[in-house]
Amino acid sequence: MSENEPLSTEAYKGVRDFYPNDFARREAVFAAIRRTLGLYGYEEYNASPLERAELYEAKTSEEIVNEQTYTFTDRGDRRVTLRPEMTPSLARMVAGKRRELVFPLRWFSIGNRFRYERPQRGRLREFFQTDVDLLGLPAGDADIEVVSLSVRVLKDLGAKDEDFIVRINSRELLTQACSAAGLTGDRIKEYMRLLDKKDKMPEGVFNAAVREITQTDPLALIANDSPSLVDAKRNILGTIVLLKEQGVANAVFDPTLVRGFDYYTGITFEVFDTNPENPRAIFGGGRYDRLVSLFGGDPIPAVGFAIGDVTLMDFLETHDIMPDGEGKAQLYLGTFPDGLEEARTFAEALRASGIRVFMNLTSRNLGDQIREAAKRGIPYFTTYGPDEVKSGNMRLKKLDTGAEESLDEQDFASYLLQVSK
Amino acid sequence: MSENEPLSTEAYKGVRDFYPNDFARREAVFAAIRRTLGLYGYEEYNASPLERAELYEAKTSEEIVNEQTYTFTDRGDRRVTLRPEMTPSLARMVAGKRRELVFPLRWFSIGNRFRYERPQRGRLREFFQTDVDLLGLPAGDADIEVVSLSVRVLKDLGAKDEDFIVRINSRELLTQACSAAGLTGDRIKEYMRLLDKKDKMPEGVFNAAVREITQTDPLALIANDSPSLVDAKRNILGTIVLLKEQGVANAVFDPTLVRGFDYYTGITFEVFDTNPENPRAIFGGGRYDRLVSLFGGDPIPAVGFAIGDVTLMDFLETHDIMPDGEGKAQLYLGTFPDGLEEARTFAEALRASGIRVFMNLTSRNLGDQIREAAKRGIPYFTTYGPDEVKSGNMRLKKLDTGAEESLDEQDFASYLLQVSK
Repeated sequence: MSENEPLSTEAYKGVRDFYPNDFARREAVFAAIRRTLGLYGYEEYNASPLERAELYEAKTSEEIVNEQTYTFTDRGDRRVTLRPEMTPSLARMVAGKRRELVFPLRWFSIGNRFRYERPQRGRLREFFQTDVDLLGLPAGDADIEVVSLSVRVLKDLGAKDEDFIVRINSRELLTQACSAAGLTGDRIKEYMRLLDKKDKMPEGVFNAAVREITQTDPLALIANDSPSLVDAKRNILGTIVLLKEQGVANAVFDPTLVRGFDYYTGITFEVFDTNPENPRAIFGGGRYDRLVSLFGGDPIPAVGFAIGDVTLMDFLETHDIMPDGEGKAQLYLGTFPDGLEEARTFAEALRASGIRVFMNLTSRNLGDQIREAAKRGIPYFTTYGPDEVKSGNMRLKKLDTGAEESLDEQDFASYLLQVSK
Repeated sequence: MSENEPLSTEAYKGVRDFYPNDFARREAVFAAIRRTLGLYGYEEYNASPLERAELYEAKTSEEIVNEQTYTFTDRGDRRVTLRPEMTPSLARMVAGKRRELVFPLRWFSIGNRFRYERPQRGRLREFFQTDVDLLGLPAGDADIEVVSLSVRVLKDLGAKDEDFIVRINSRELLTQACSAAGLTGDRIKEYMRLLDKKDKMPEGVFNAAVREITQTDPLALIANDSPSLVDAKRNILGTIVLLKEQGVANAVFDPTLVRGFDYYTGITFEVFDTNPENPRAIFGGGRYDRLVSLFGGDPIPAVGFAIGDVTLMDFLETHDIMPDGEGKAQLYLGTFPDGLEEARTFAEALRASGIRVFMNLTSRNLGDQIREAAKRGIPYFTTYGPDEVKSGNMRLKKLDTGAEESLDEQDFASYLLQVSK
C-alpha cells in the first residue's frame, strides 16, 4: 500500500459499527432483557468468542460447521473457531464445573456470534444473541418456565399478545413420527432439514424432495396418530394447556416446527411475528438433554432459547416499541476562555451530585455552543463563569423549547436532577 | 474423534470463561467505570472485533502486527484481523463520519482485544480494555481533562493518591531529543523501543544496546537541555503544574517514558502502581494527532487512554478495593410440589415490584432448599403455599444470620425492598 493512499473507512464486510446513538439503542434493549431475566433469578455468564474448533464439529448443525464458521489455525497450530452460537460453550462450561456448581442453573449470556454468510436483511456475519438456559431440570415445569420467560422478555419490551404467536412442537414426537414412517438415521435428519426449510421453498419442490426420502405424502408423516406416538403428543399438548393457563395466550401446537439444531431432544418452540409485513421467526429454542454429556459424565437435562439482536430490533421497530437510549449528558456547560477554572469547579460539584456534564473546552462563542449542545441532543444548557460566581445566579435553558429558568446556584443541582434523568 | 471419547471442557488457550460470579465482579468494575465516564459526558461506542487486516499494517506497533495479531483469510479471500487494540477502529469510525459527527467527541468503548501471546500473569490472548478518547481538540485543556479523568476513574473505584503515580512525558520532546542527538528515522524508533523495555532488561544490556544506536551515554540523550528543546519541555512541565492544581497530586515528569505505540505525537502518560509488590504500569495513553488523517482529510487531533482489565483487576485486588458483583437473586422462594401454582403467582407479584426471585422447581425438601439457597449466596429465603394463602402470614429467613421475621403477606415486598437491593 502506498504511503499516501488513504486507508478505507469501511468496516469488515457484514459487521456493524456501533456509533454512540446506535450503541445506546442496542444497550437499552439489552438492559431491558437483563432486567427481566434478573427478576427470574437468571445470572449472566460469558466466554471468549475464540473456541477450540472441535467443539462445533461434535454437535452443531452440519451446515453451520461446514459452510458458515470462521475457523482458522493459530500461530501455535491450534484450530480455532469464532463461536457461531453459545450453547456448545455453555455445555462445555457447565460440564467443566459440574461438581462445584449448584443445580439447577438459571443462566444467560449476551454477546456476539459469528457466521460466514452472505450479508442480507436480518443476517449479518456478526450478530448479538441473548442465550437463556435452565439446566438440571427435566421436561415439565422447567419447559413452561423457559417458554413463559421468553414471552415475558418480549412483553417487558412492550410487545402485546397479538404481536406474535408461540409455535410449539416436540422433537421427541417428530423423531418418533419419522421412525413410525420407516425413516432411520440420516434420513430422519434429511427429512427434518427439509421440513425446517419448507416455508422458504416452493411447495412442489418441497413435496418432490420429501417423496424421495419418505415415499409417502410429505405431511402425512407428521399427522400420524398411531398409538406409539400418543404419549409424546399428550405431553406436548399438556404443556401447551399449562402455558395458556399461565398467561401465554398465543401458544399453538405446530407439528411441522423443527428449529435448526440437531441437538434438541424435547420441546422446541419459536416466537413468530404476526405482522403480515414481517412474517418470520423472531427467535426460538428447545430442550437439549444430551449435549452436556458429550463432555463426559451423566446427562444434565437442559432447556433454553436464544434471541438474535437483528431480528429482535426489526420486530421492535416494526411494532414501534424500540426503547430510548440512555446515558447521554444531561447538561452542556458553556464556558468562556477566561472562566474555565470556575466552570470546572462547578462541573465537578454537579458530577458529585450524579449529574452527567459535558463541558465546553473550545473557543466557540455562546451562540455556537448552544447550537452545538442542541445538535448533540443534550437537553439542558447553562454557563458558569465570573458573573455567576459573583451573583450566585444562574440561567438554565431547556434546549427543545428554548425556555429559560433563573435559579440560585445552590438549588441548581437538585432542580436539574428533578427535571432530567 | 471417536464417537465415545468425551470432548475436553478446556477453554481455548489463554482466554477466560466468565462463570456468573466472575462475570458479576468484572461487570461491577465496568459499571463503575461507565458511571464515571458518563458523568464527564463520554458516550460509549463499539465496533466488531473483526477488522480488515490492513488497518493495523499502517500504524500499530510492528511487534504487535508481525508477532501478535490473529490474522487469517476468510472464505471470500479477505484478510481479517481480530483487533489487538481499539484505537485504529476508533480512528476509522471517526474518519468515516467526520462530516456528520459533532466535534469534539468524548467517546469510550469497553470490549475485548486479542493478541497471540504466551499466556502469563497479566497477559492473556483475550483481554478487555476500556478505551477513552477526546477527539477534535488540540493539546492543552484536553490533555489535562483526559489525564485527570483517568485518575478520577481509579479514585471512583476506591484508589487513593498514594496507591499510584502518574508518569508523564512528551513524545514531541523525546523525538526532538533524539534528533538533537543525531538520530533519524528508524534509529529513533529503535531507541524508543529500547527505552520502552529498559525496566525489563539488565542495565548493562540496555546500555550496550543503546550505545550501538546512539554512540552516546544512554540517558544523556533525554537529559538534553539544549535550547531547541525548551518549548516542548516547558509545555509538558506546564501541563504537569496544571494537573497538580486540578487535584492530580501524584503527577511526575518522566523523560524516559515511551509507551508502546508509534502513533503518539504529544503527551504520553502512564499510571503506575506504587505498591512495592506490584511495581508496574496499570494503564496509559497519550496524544495521537495524525492517526485519523491516515483515512484521508485534515488531521483530527486526539488524546486518550486505555485501561486493561487484567492489570486493573490485579491493582484492585492488591489494594483490596474490588467492588462487589450485583444482580443476584434477592429471594429464594421455597416451594412444595403441590403448592407450585400459588408460589408462582406470589413470585410474579414480587417481580412486578422489582424483586429478583429464584423459585424452586425441584422436589427437594425445605431443609435442602434452604441449604441450596445459602450455597447460592441468595440472602433471603421464604416459602409460599396453601398455608400462606390461608393465613396471609409469611416467614422471611435471613440466611447469613438465620434470623427470621414474621410478616404480613401485603407488607412482604416493601419490607424486602427495604432490606435488600
